[in-house]
Amino acid sequence: MVAPPPKTAHLLASPDDVEAQFYEALREADLDKLMGVWSDDDDIVCVHPGGPRVVGARAIRASFEAIFANGGIPLQTENCKRVHTLSAAMHNLVEAVAIVSADGVQRASVVATNVYVKTALGWRMVSHHASPGDGRDMGASDDAQTTLH
Amino acid sequence: MVAPPPKTAHLLASPDDVEAQFYEALREADLDKLMGVWSDDDDIVCVHPGGPRVVGARAIRASFEAIFANGGIPLQTENCKRVHTLSAAMHNLVEAVAIVSADGVQRASVVATNVYVKTALGWRMVSHHASPGDGRDMGASDDAQTTLH
Repeated sequence: MVAPPPKTAHLLASPDDVEAQFYEALREADLDKLMGVWSDDDDIVCVHPGGPRVVGARAIRASFEAIFANGGIPLQTENCKRVHTLSAAMHNLVEAVAIVSADGVQRASVVATNVYVKTALGWRMVSHHASPGDGRDMGASDDAQTTLH
Repeated sequence: MVAPPPKTAHLLASPDDVEAQFYEALREADLDKLMGVWSDDDDIVCVHPGGPRVVGARAIRASFEAIFANGGIPLQTENCKRVHTLSAAMHNLVEAVAIVSADGVQRASVVATNVYVKTALGWRMVSHHASPGDGRDMGASDDAQTTLH
């Protein structure tokens, strides 16, 4: 028995490592790097903003290949909410997209839920669900007032 | 030290139990039953279809209170994709809504990612992310062809 080769050059030692590589790959339009973050599970799921559900590695790869035909996505992630367990992690964050053109800078905001699980090969993504947002959180400031002291 | 009382009459012994109670509460417009499925974590997150991110129990409760002012939601869940670990679970499913009116039956489809974690009190929801769908899965049939013998 020979151990399977690592899928990526990175050691995906934590959910944050996986997330960093996922968004690097989105910015760089690097399809192999992007697919390297996903789990081998058959039921991995991806929902692009405004799109249908995409199930399984083959279909997810095809969906990102179509997106990358237009180049990478100039985005930064902001305001991550995290719930971690020993074997899985849920991150919810805002993807801030800024596209510079002759008409100036166009900004868009996407809300994404990313789910990671710990596998024998390290942490991997099992779900990415994104939908259009407005950058605002409902209730966040209210809750901060109740949880401080 | 006295153990905190259970939040609900149900024993939430599995992710499927939590999910069943969540959707029962949505159908019945039962706010207390609905809030009983959520974890106590500060970073619980809910995204309603087309809506912004809602963070924390207080804001999530207020968002469902507003929805329930119009009554329960006549929905059924379909085609759940599951990734489970010992301490957490990711479910992605289709919420099929059928509203009967004088004009006939109006159908709508929502894609939802639900995340559950195992707590000292049993399994609880930490994230519900929903967005409009069309009931179709991209790639599911392709993937089935490659995985079925």
